[in-house]
Amino acid sequence: MPTTQLSFQSRAEHRDWLSRNAALPRGFRVGTSSLTFVPVEAPKPGRMNLSLIALDRPTDAFAAKFTRNAFPGAPILIGRQRLQGAALSAVLVNNKISNVCAPGGVETAEQICGEVGRLLGRPGAEVFPSSTGVIGWRLPADAMVAALPAAVASFQSQSILPVAEAIMTTDLYPKIRRVELPGGGSIVGIAKGAGMIEPNLATMLVFILTDVQVSRAELRATLDEAVDGSFQDISIDSDTSVSDTVLLASSNVVATPDLAAFRAGVRQVCRALAGDVVRNGEGVHHVIRVLVKGAPSRQIARELGKAVVNSPLFQCAVNGNDPNVGRLVCALGKEIGIRGTPVDPSKISMSIAGECIFSQCTMRLSPAVEERLVAHLKGAELYASVPPPDGMTFKPGIDYPKHERCVEIEVSLEAGSASCEVLGTDRSHEYITENADYRS
Amino acid sequence: MPTTQLSFQSRAEHRDWLSRNAALPRGFRVGTSSLTFVPVEAPKPGRMNLSLIALDRPTDAFAAKFTRNAFPGAPILIGRQRLQGAALSAVLVNNKISNVCAPGGVETAEQICGEVGRLLGRPGAEVFPSSTGVIGWRLPADAMVAALPAAVASFQSQSILPVAEAIMTTDLYPKIRRVELPGGGSIVGIAKGAGMIEPNLATMLVFILTDVQVSRAELRATLDEAVDGSFQDISIDSDTSVSDTVLLASSNVVATPDLAAFRAGVRQVCRALAGDVVRNGEGVHHVIRVLVKGAPSRQIARELGKAVVNSPLFQCAVNGNDPNVGRLVCALGKEIGIRGTPVDPSKISMSIAGECIFSQCTMRLSPAVEERLVAHLKGAELYASVPPPDGMTFKPGIDYPKHERCVEIEVSLEAGSASCEVLGTDRSHEYITENADYRS
Repeated sequence: MPTTQLSFQSRAEHRDWLSRNAALPRGFRVGTSSLTFVPVEAPKPGRMNLSLIALDRPTDAFAAKFTRNAFPGAPILIGRQRLQGAALSAVLVNNKISNVCAPGGVETAEQICGEVGRLLGRPGAEVFPSSTGVIGWRLPADAMVAALPAAVASFQSQSILPVAEAIMTTDLYPKIRRVELPGGGSIVGIAKGAGMIEPNLATMLVFILTDVQVSRAELRATLDEAVDGSFQDISIDSDTSVSDTVLLASSNVVATPDLAAFRAGVRQVCRALAGDVVRNGEGVHHVIRVLVKGAPSRQIARELGKAVVNSPLFQCAVNGNDPNVGRLVCALGKEIGIRGTPVDPSKISMSIAGECIFSQCTMRLSPAVEERLVAHLKGAELYASVPPPDGMTFKPGIDYPKHERCVEIEVSLEAGSASCEVLGTDRSHEYITENADYRS
Repeated sequence: MPTTQLSFQSRAEHRDWLSRNAALPRGFRVGTSSLTFVPVEAPKPGRMNLSLIALDRPTDAFAAKFTRNAFPGAPILIGRQRLQGAALSAVLVNNKISNVCAPGGVETAEQICGEVGRLLGRPGAEVFPSSTGVIGWRLPADAMVAALPAAVASFQSQSILPVAEAIMTTDLYPKIRRVELPGGGSIVGIAKGAGMIEPNLATMLVFILTDVQVSRAELRATLDEAVDGSFQDISIDSDTSVSDTVLLASSNVVATPDLAAFRAGVRQVCRALAGDVVRNGEGVHHVIRVLVKGAPSRQIARELGKAVVNSPLFQCAVNGNDPNVGRLVCALGKEIGIRGTPVDPSKISMSIAGECIFSQCTMRLSPAVEERLVAHLKGAELYASVPPPDGMTFKPGIDYPKHERCVEIEVSLEAGSASCEVLGTDRSHEYITENADYRS
């Protein structure tokens, strides 16, 4: 979704780019610390990072979108209450344990928020909690409280990069996007993603900070609109997280003459971060971009795009640089046939990399077409699997995004004027390895 | 779904069991042959099997259910017409190419049916075509016609096993189920499955033969009912094939005193074959059985069960014998939250292997529970992955079904009296290997 494509030759080059884009908007301080703990539920010790994002002065200009999963985590339950409150002073994020459906989860989170408030001289109710990691386990409250002063002691107001790193779980690299506004002020967003990604109304953990003066109502409308055109349109594995959160907060320090530019800026940051999350999805070798156009509605276009990128068989074929376009047709045909989508199958055409491969219910294939499609798939590959030393444990071959090329698919329905661009991924040995024993 | 559990120590023992259950009902003959061909669309030669199932006398008692995919194959388009016809004389099945969305696919299939009819002395319109394999490629009509006489020459009326073998694609072993009816006569079914399996109204290729005298209307009602309680309730990869077909034909040779026993017999054959198809799904190490009960409707129970078995993250965890029950909760919560399923999340409880692990929105976990769940998962494993010689190409470790144990999950909704038992699978390196380059 980024308008200009980035590419990097090394981790160092990527890090350098991140650092240059990590400057905090005015009015914020951030700090991190870490701790070790032994979960109550399993005997193996783990390491957890804490991240604190604090406002110099409490703000009423904050907005958040949450998962629609029916078993939301304790931070989501609390966050929904916080949205009703008058002010936000800080956000506390931990990785490793998501505090979802754990006994006493809400009470534990409130206790820790209270302690953050005490350290900052503000009420605990102005602290927004956010957690990601294993579902069902209890937070190690005492160890977390003990690690909070170190996070406060590390406060600085220059760079969000330490936080972008500290919130990662299986992410390979931090994700930061920024927009400088023409009238002054900036918007900076960070995201953690990797797995359990098919957002619905919001996704993953995303924190977007700005110093631009915007009213609460305006801020919330802006986030609604931006999330709908970005995180809503991606899927890595069709699993909608119990912890999805996108938070936008302003320190209200910089007066803005141009609200439209602010809105466009938030949209741009959201779309770029959504693309980053997909590209750094667990085990992702290829990003697949499906543009569905000529649809009766944007919702239908999105559903058909998702049907393509969530098809396990198509995902595997793309992983193998195998242009098995029959599976593309199968995935679309399933969705249309089963949902009764109001389109005429005989009018549908499909192209890959601009090459028409299907129209009038007939494939347009030849060895020459096949050759060009294979070249396109290979060109969009981020890395190839390498046989692991133990024969089983596949590890991703990169820790930075080499390029932003995608497998480009276009589906034309000739059934209306709506469209949607959906981003998804292939399915690899690295995904299986990562998720066959995630908690160990 | 089988009521008594089978287990086998070796391929030979499984083959022996298949042979003993393969006797054809009276009034049928079967034959097979094979051919090599070079597809128009790709330069690599392939090998194809032809299977002919012929009735001694044309019958009007035949029924079929087809895929709801919006891009059905030519055999489905023709099959829907055949259902309107007066008589069925034979079924011709080929593997390797599914004849879906291929240029001139219907004409080619009709041409080959005409040739089968000529050899049998019947009209081509009494021949039912069925194809499975690569989507989009053209059938090698000339080579297929040339191989037909050999299939006819091999006709015999003893065993369906050669056909159960010849229709396989990525299946590891043939699938046959039979029921002997108390009043005389029998029902014998065969199936090919493996990938692209989330049936909708029908699935895969399944052929069920009987010699029991049943009217066409009765036969069709019986198949409707049996498919709804069997193939409709399984998923290997959520991909609904463009070729799904279940066909039931009677030679009408044996008068039956007991129509209820016949119906129950067809139901039993369908349920057992559905279980076989799942157990022999591509790369399957574990079969997952989810019983959803206390549901407002059977359809809702089925959707929730499918949401569990189609969750990539839960599939991977099961593959690693990792009882990551958080992903089970996440998968259910996604479906309920996004579809707006009319149930109260706080009333839902879940158990694995009879052990309650979730109730009142809270996990019930401990190291002891974890240990018992790991043991249950390991007990349901069919085989473990072995590091492949080339480091990349994982091959299934078995070519027969060692046992019929499942990962047993129960979800209680307390929201009604309907229930559904859904069968699904884990997700493995073998699935990725199989599907990263299926066509080569």
